[in-house]
Amino acid sequence: MSTALLTDHYELTMLAAALRDGTADRPCVFEVFARRLPEGRRYGVVAGTGRLLDAIRDFRFDEAELAQLAEANVVDERTLAWLADYRFTGEVDGYPEGELYFPGSPLLSVRASFGEGVVLETLALSILNHDSAIASAAARMVGAANGRRMIEMGSRRTHEEAAVASARAAYLAGFTATSNLEAGRRHGIPTAGTCAHAFTLLHDTEEEAFRSQVEALGADTTLLVDTYDITNGIALAVKAAGPELGAVRIDSGDLGVLARQAREQLDSLGAKNTRIVVSGDLDEYSIAALRAEPVDSYGVGTSLVTGSGAPTAGMVYKLVEVDGRPVAKRSSHKESRGGRKGVLRRHKETGTALEEVVFPFGEQPETGEHDRLLQIPLLRAGQPTDEVPTLAQSRERLRAALVTVPWEGLKLSRGEPAIPTTFL
Amino acid sequence: MSTALLTDHYELTMLAAALRDGTADRPCVFEVFARRLPEGRRYGVVAGTGRLLDAIRDFRFDEAELAQLAEANVVDERTLAWLADYRFTGEVDGYPEGELYFPGSPLLSVRASFGEGVVLETLALSILNHDSAIASAAARMVGAANGRRMIEMGSRRTHEEAAVASARAAYLAGFTATSNLEAGRRHGIPTAGTCAHAFTLLHDTEEEAFRSQVEALGADTTLLVDTYDITNGIALAVKAAGPELGAVRIDSGDLGVLARQAREQLDSLGAKNTRIVVSGDLDEYSIAALRAEPVDSYGVGTSLVTGSGAPTAGMVYKLVEVDGRPVAKRSSHKESRGGRKGVLRRHKETGTALEEVVFPFGEQPETGEHDRLLQIPLLRAGQPTDEVPTLAQSRERLRAALVTVPWEGLKLSRGEPAIPTTFL
Repeated sequence: MSTALLTDHYELTMLAAALRDGTADRPCVFEVFARRLPEGRRYGVVAGTGRLLDAIRDFRFDEAELAQLAEANVVDERTLAWLADYRFTGEVDGYPEGELYFPGSPLLSVRASFGEGVVLETLALSILNHDSAIASAAARMVGAANGRRMIEMGSRRTHEEAAVASARAAYLAGFTATSNLEAGRRHGIPTAGTCAHAFTLLHDTEEEAFRSQVEALGADTTLLVDTYDITNGIALAVKAAGPELGAVRIDSGDLGVLARQAREQLDSLGAKNTRIVVSGDLDEYSIAALRAEPVDSYGVGTSLVTGSGAPTAGMVYKLVEVDGRPVAKRSSHKESRGGRKGVLRRHKETGTALEEVVFPFGEQPETGEHDRLLQIPLLRAGQPTDEVPTLAQSRERLRAALVTVPWEGLKLSRGEPAIPTTFL
Repeated sequence: MSTALLTDHYELTMLAAALRDGTADRPCVFEVFARRLPEGRRYGVVAGTGRLLDAIRDFRFDEAELAQLAEANVVDERTLAWLADYRFTGEVDGYPEGELYFPGSPLLSVRASFGEGVVLETLALSILNHDSAIASAAARMVGAANGRRMIEMGSRRTHEEAAVASARAAYLAGFTATSNLEAGRRHGIPTAGTCAHAFTLLHDTEEEAFRSQVEALGADTTLLVDTYDITNGIALAVKAAGPELGAVRIDSGDLGVLARQAREQLDSLGAKNTRIVVSGDLDEYSIAALRAEPVDSYGVGTSLVTGSGAPTAGMVYKLVEVDGRPVAKRSSHKESRGGRKGVLRRHKETGTALEEVVFPFGEQPETGEHDRLLQIPLLRAGQPTDEVPTLAQSRERLRAALVTVPWEGLKLSRGEPAIPTTFL
């Protein structure tokens, strides 16, 4: 499917005017960055780059797209002809997925003619803003869970396609599995799920429902025990599955108290290895608050897919260089810095990150052995490079990057960015 | 494209267990409702139903979907065979799009076998929760704009497909146009856009950029005047286009002050019919705050596509009846009311809404001539009825429905639902 119309109207009218006046071919650099992190957040997680590269590959104006643009009178004939041949042939460098970012970090650098680059603005921002917002929230939740299993189950609380991307972003950030089957197909993410309250209600008794589930899915299944009465539900669950029962899930009530009671009851019934899964409006704070409780897994929905209060990352896509000349908007508070940039992150000898250093491209400052350049080549002549990481590699990259964050930067409370950004 | 895997894993495992124990064929009623409105909101707007009916039509397990489920070992052979033949053959009634809803309003009633109905849970909720959240926020913005043009331009701040659905929801709620070209193609929504700051920066001078834009798009275009200095920008804009200039857009700064200055300047230059478009982090509150200013159009982005603080509507899909027997979860705070329901809205003689009355289906209370039943038939034997409204009709329905809201219910400030819901 073509992604070409996932684009704002003005990109094509700008293109039309630029084709007409001869500026469309000027070599340009566009950069993606976030002016700030969501309020109080201490780091952001880059996500979506892999999806973006696929979307750029599919950015083609085929007959259907051209017919629509002609019919709606969006652009003139000359522009339609140009779009019919559109293939991105430029260069893209950027932070690999799973890398941390801070205010002003140049996450993506697109080098192409004005025409080739300007039409990618909306697509690039939609994908990066969404996926990075979800991954950034997810990383905080994974940190709060402190190694326990995390299951993403928020599909029902967001747009049906955003759900698939959210599952991917959550997995990148360290979630164990998702409920979303399409995310399993499209991104190879493990999927999980057993039964909802509806299954219990469908049956004449809770016991019948549990017996049926165990017969169908095995004793290692997860039984949802809070449809009627949790204590009774747990007793019936162990009766139905035996002490080999895989897990019980509690989806409502005071999860800390209930988890403790459930653990005691399960142990007393000999189900010492039966795990406890909790879910129900969890966010990073409630996950952290359950740290001392006997919880084995968290199911997280709404707060994950809505970015836990920050549903978009607020990144922008700005023209910073034309024909080798730095350009920048100069009015009011929305200033940006002109010119193509390079970026490195300085670290202490211990590996702890110290600062993000953004410099004019070609003027790289002296770097110590613990410093690291952050952009990698993503597209060359429009084609993906060998350096584009897999989802598994990005997941590992984030895990490693979070180890470098100064300890204050990992606090859940509101605060300043974990490291400062210095512009040379 | 099949929508079948936009589904949570547990729906298929429930189905597998129910097929095995013989309960999958039990006739069931599922209902969609919101336990509450987002905090402080006074009404909700139903949106997404039209998209949902299309998605149910496309809910087919073809070879690719079945292969994935087999490979990932999600369900057994018997279930795969059942899914291969899946077509929704049941009945769906619901609130038409553009109708208002309140806590507990039964927005959608799905009547089908357990198997046919349970697999639609995630798809139905994803679409309704997303689209209703956006439409509900959009309706408040349209009210705040008090008849002025509203342009949706938030695509870059949300998932690329959520962007298309957001444009649709905004249009339903009364927005005039969208920047999103795919929304133009898919939903017939007018699209709009001219130029961004990048176009000005591309050129050697602002004047060259403006002249080029006017040549390409005509004097009736909108010139973005805040790249360098707004006063100078407006002077250059009128110089380039003449006093017939269509509009100027201001995207930064104190929009009220700037709009007033721009109006005076435009008038003094003889451009008395040139309109003023403002944009830049607008939400319903800042739109309302500009009511006294000479603003002709608002461009709204981030706050629209993120639901202005409420990015999801929080609707749930609950099994309420099995074999004619009401069923309901009974533990803790997440209670629901068993049994299929009917619903009507009572109105004063003046047409002002008084209350939402939810009653056990078949026990309809006496209704006055101003009262109105709220559900309409949407699917019969799995096929859309003639009563399914078009997007234009839904837009008109919302406009009419908002007129019935008691005046307190239209306030932007936080408060209680505009009318109470009574459960008989």
